[in-house]
Amino acid sequence: MSFQFQINQEVKFNYDKALLDKSKKYIPDTISREIHFKNLGQLVEDRTKLENITIEPITDLLEEQKYHKDDTFILDFGNHYVGHFSIAINSVGSPMDAPLYIRLRFAEVAAELSHESEEYDGWLSKGWIQEEFVHLDELPTILSLPRRYAFRYVEIKIMDTSPKWYATFSDAKLKTALSVDEENVKLPKIDDQELERIYQVAIKTLADCMSDVFEDGPKRDRRLWLGDLRLQALSNYKSFQQNDLVKRCLYLFAGMTSVDGRISANVFTKPKANPDDTFLFDYSLFFISVLHDFIENENESEVLAELYPIAKKQMDYSLNFIKPDGHIDCPDDYPVFVDWSNEFSKDVCAQAVIIYTLKQFIQLTNRLGQDTRKYQLMLDNLETYAKDVLFNSDKNMFQCVNGEFNIASQVWMVLAQVFPKEINKSIMGTAYKEFFPIRGIATPYMYHHITEALFMSDHYEKAVSLMKNYWGKMIDLGADTFWEAFDPNQPDYSPYGSPIISSYCHAWSCTPIYLIHKYVLESNE
Amino acid sequence: MSFQFQINQEVKFNYDKALLDKSKKYIPDTISREIHFKNLGQLVEDRTKLENITIEPITDLLEEQKYHKDDTFILDFGNHYVGHFSIAINSVGSPMDAPLYIRLRFAEVAAELSHESEEYDGWLSKGWIQEEFVHLDELPTILSLPRRYAFRYVEIKIMDTSPKWYATFSDAKLKTALSVDEENVKLPKIDDQELERIYQVAIKTLADCMSDVFEDGPKRDRRLWLGDLRLQALSNYKSFQQNDLVKRCLYLFAGMTSVDGRISANVFTKPKANPDDTFLFDYSLFFISVLHDFIENENESEVLAELYPIAKKQMDYSLNFIKPDGHIDCPDDYPVFVDWSNEFSKDVCAQAVIIYTLKQFIQLTNRLGQDTRKYQLMLDNLETYAKDVLFNSDKNMFQCVNGEFNIASQVWMVLAQVFPKEINKSIMGTAYKEFFPIRGIATPYMYHHITEALFMSDHYEKAVSLMKNYWGKMIDLGADTFWEAFDPNQPDYSPYGSPIISSYCHAWSCTPIYLIHKYVLESNE
Repeated sequence: MSFQFQINQEVKFNYDKALLDKSKKYIPDTISREIHFKNLGQLVEDRTKLENITIEPITDLLEEQKYHKDDTFILDFGNHYVGHFSIAINSVGSPMDAPLYIRLRFAEVAAELSHESEEYDGWLSKGWIQEEFVHLDELPTILSLPRRYAFRYVEIKIMDTSPKWYATFSDAKLKTALSVDEENVKLPKIDDQELERIYQVAIKTLADCMSDVFEDGPKRDRRLWLGDLRLQALSNYKSFQQNDLVKRCLYLFAGMTSVDGRISANVFTKPKANPDDTFLFDYSLFFISVLHDFIENENESEVLAELYPIAKKQMDYSLNFIKPDGHIDCPDDYPVFVDWSNEFSKDVCAQAVIIYTLKQFIQLTNRLGQDTRKYQLMLDNLETYAKDVLFNSDKNMFQCVNGEFNIASQVWMVLAQVFPKEINKSIMGTAYKEFFPIRGIATPYMYHHITEALFMSDHYEKAVSLMKNYWGKMIDLGADTFWEAFDPNQPDYSPYGSPIISSYCHAWSCTPIYLIHKYVLESNE
Repeated sequence: MSFQFQINQEVKFNYDKALLDKSKKYIPDTISREIHFKNLGQLVEDRTKLENITIEPITDLLEEQKYHKDDTFILDFGNHYVGHFSIAINSVGSPMDAPLYIRLRFAEVAAELSHESEEYDGWLSKGWIQEEFVHLDELPTILSLPRRYAFRYVEIKIMDTSPKWYATFSDAKLKTALSVDEENVKLPKIDDQELERIYQVAIKTLADCMSDVFEDGPKRDRRLWLGDLRLQALSNYKSFQQNDLVKRCLYLFAGMTSVDGRISANVFTKPKANPDDTFLFDYSLFFISVLHDFIENENESEVLAELYPIAKKQMDYSLNFIKPDGHIDCPDDYPVFVDWSNEFSKDVCAQAVIIYTLKQFIQLTNRLGQDTRKYQLMLDNLETYAKDVLFNSDKNMFQCVNGEFNIASQVWMVLAQVFPKEINKSIMGTAYKEFFPIRGIATPYMYHHITEALFMSDHYEKAVSLMKNYWGKMIDLGADTFWEAFDPNQPDYSPYGSPIISSYCHAWSCTPIYLIHKYVLESNE
């Protein structure tokens, strides 16, 4: 996530100290590893890689090189990492009679290094560009940058030395700071090598987004989004099982609700917990989903008891927008996300999302032994409207109010299980004929839901094929981690106009972990 | 100093641990003061100021401003300072959803802020440009920059925030770190208001160059040059009397001589003492002058005993280049500095400098009760050649081997007191007619020697007038401290092609302290 942009400064929030204290209590320990650079590399063109740019190894003998004004070199760490970078720097030649002035650029993918930051002038803050200018008055020194970066490559350009001496470099390394140890996670046996590779890259993606919250992307935004958390948590239960981190995130959202009860779509945690003034209909409701999934995995009654009231507020708030005929009509200040694209109508999706989450909410209510009748009635009303009005039986697809058919509507109604599996299979069959190959969708978030809908509706082969053609294609293009955005029809597409601002490790793309476990491995057991 | 540029990496040095330990022992305590910014200012054109650029005050209510992408503001501290800058930064509006990215530029004079660093591509390292780019991931924070800057103005440009919030600033301040307290120096009573103002600016200039060594300039080079030390020490004896610092610098030079005995023209002290591989005939000999002047002011026999052997080596080395007829012929690898300009012949100056320093050396030798006969014979030989061959009695001026007459030759022969005062007065009278107004000289270093030669040869009015027209004109152009270079005929002249790389507080320009004391105040007593 990150593309959403709202300003609602007038919204007031309640801070629940008890819940926020719990969110602190569940911060996992930090796991640090020291990673040394692998090779000096050089940018070369390669038409099979992202934007035709890749980095080929030259040598690993960094300490034998000496660099002068305008020289540039690229350190390749061999994989994507998140952490703090340091490098030893010295001078050779005459005494160092001027500061060393260098520029450092951190890149997740090679293509970032083929663009200059001056070229970028988009609306997304250029503050995210991983570029630093550093003066060093005294050498030798160890340059330890205070900020954290997400990168595989570090490019260092010598802005100036002086005519009298050269700069030399050695011991380039990074120190990770994650809440999981990706080296020690138990990988399942996956017979299909393509899926195995997709699974591994998904594991790296998820791990690099797990610090003291589930971040959306470690390069950019670096914050906790509720809808993204839902997918990260589902993948985490199948892999790292760092369930304290999920709990922490649940308490964080629960501890900061607006005075009308809603949960913000995302929260910041540094220097202190602070909710964003952005609200999304589906993201708020997904608090119920995250809680539901957590309780399914960790049956902690205390957590359920403490967080159920917050979940209930999300549901009750949204049920206000259900019309007597059973259709939901979200207000303008509570938009439905579903996908970045606003080129399709989302009213059917909104109906499906509230059905999906209401079913989970009723399960939670049952667990507490509370009365669900009111909610069951609401659900019946919503489902009846969906089946009787929104479903076009001639076309065998759900249809938006404006007459439009789109893939997202079918997917979400299947995920919400409005119809039984047989009919869902038939609907997804129709959707496949109509909308495949997929056009106009660039988020792994939406691709996840399409894939899961295919799996759930018994289109196993199509689901596996979609995973391979989407996540697998990113790997073919050189991905060490899965990206924030990817449109297989335009491999160099960036939602921001430049790769230097794109995030190439974005958690909402880690879901092959969950999908492969649940639908490939467990269903074959 | 700084303009000299040599690479002699093959030169080996001896490090005398005992002398270097003493150089550490005499490091003075650091005196820190906290200085708060005075006003927000704006760049405006003013044809009476340097390059027509000045900064006018707007308001001192910094904390009431809020800044967005591409906004710029200028903090004016009201005077020139050397120290560490800090500022409190916060955000207002929606939550801070991206790093704050700012550029800071530190300027000694307003003209620096009218140039962009990208414009500069000279041979002098652009690493000296006082410009930093800083990302701040979390607000509020106190930004405390780790490097030391020399500045009156700080310009902050907001490279980016995000559309959701503004950056706010408060508590902009700096902390000085000098070895003297300019606020507590006793200023003499000077009746002439122009001279009084020149004296005050000279005091500020010298103070801001006194840290743990006498620096040449706190913005650029920041190192100890031997020829510059001579003038700083002379001014220091008349004002701050921080004589331990002089002693420290003497031991530093003495502790690191090349294997052939010569002292480097300058030394570095960070991270450890380290001599530059640059050698200048006159600068090496000035070790004798600095020791002579120190002993005149602080009659410390231990210092004399320890450092005399080093002084003797400088003299003995140079005496090798005296030809039997009594003229000195410096080798190419031991150039004579005298002034940056290489547009005039310096052979007469070389002859004068060795006479000047040999006289001081003989005084030191006499103090130690050692035999001076050998040196006295050398001196006679050198002086006889100067008077009989180099002095052109028809022209009443000293003449270079190539037939050239120049002002530097007359000045240095007068300073060396080759002739008695009467004749010197006559020579400087001729030089005044020939070479005034001065052309082609842009260093306060050379202007100092011209002024002192005028004073010494009884041209009091001309000397005072030259001080007012040279140092006084810098003040008219807005100087808070005196500059590294100034040509009154081209007020915007920079030896490096851009003011952003020029040093506007340069110690070799502080000598009005010495000149006013010795020739205005003390001679009127």
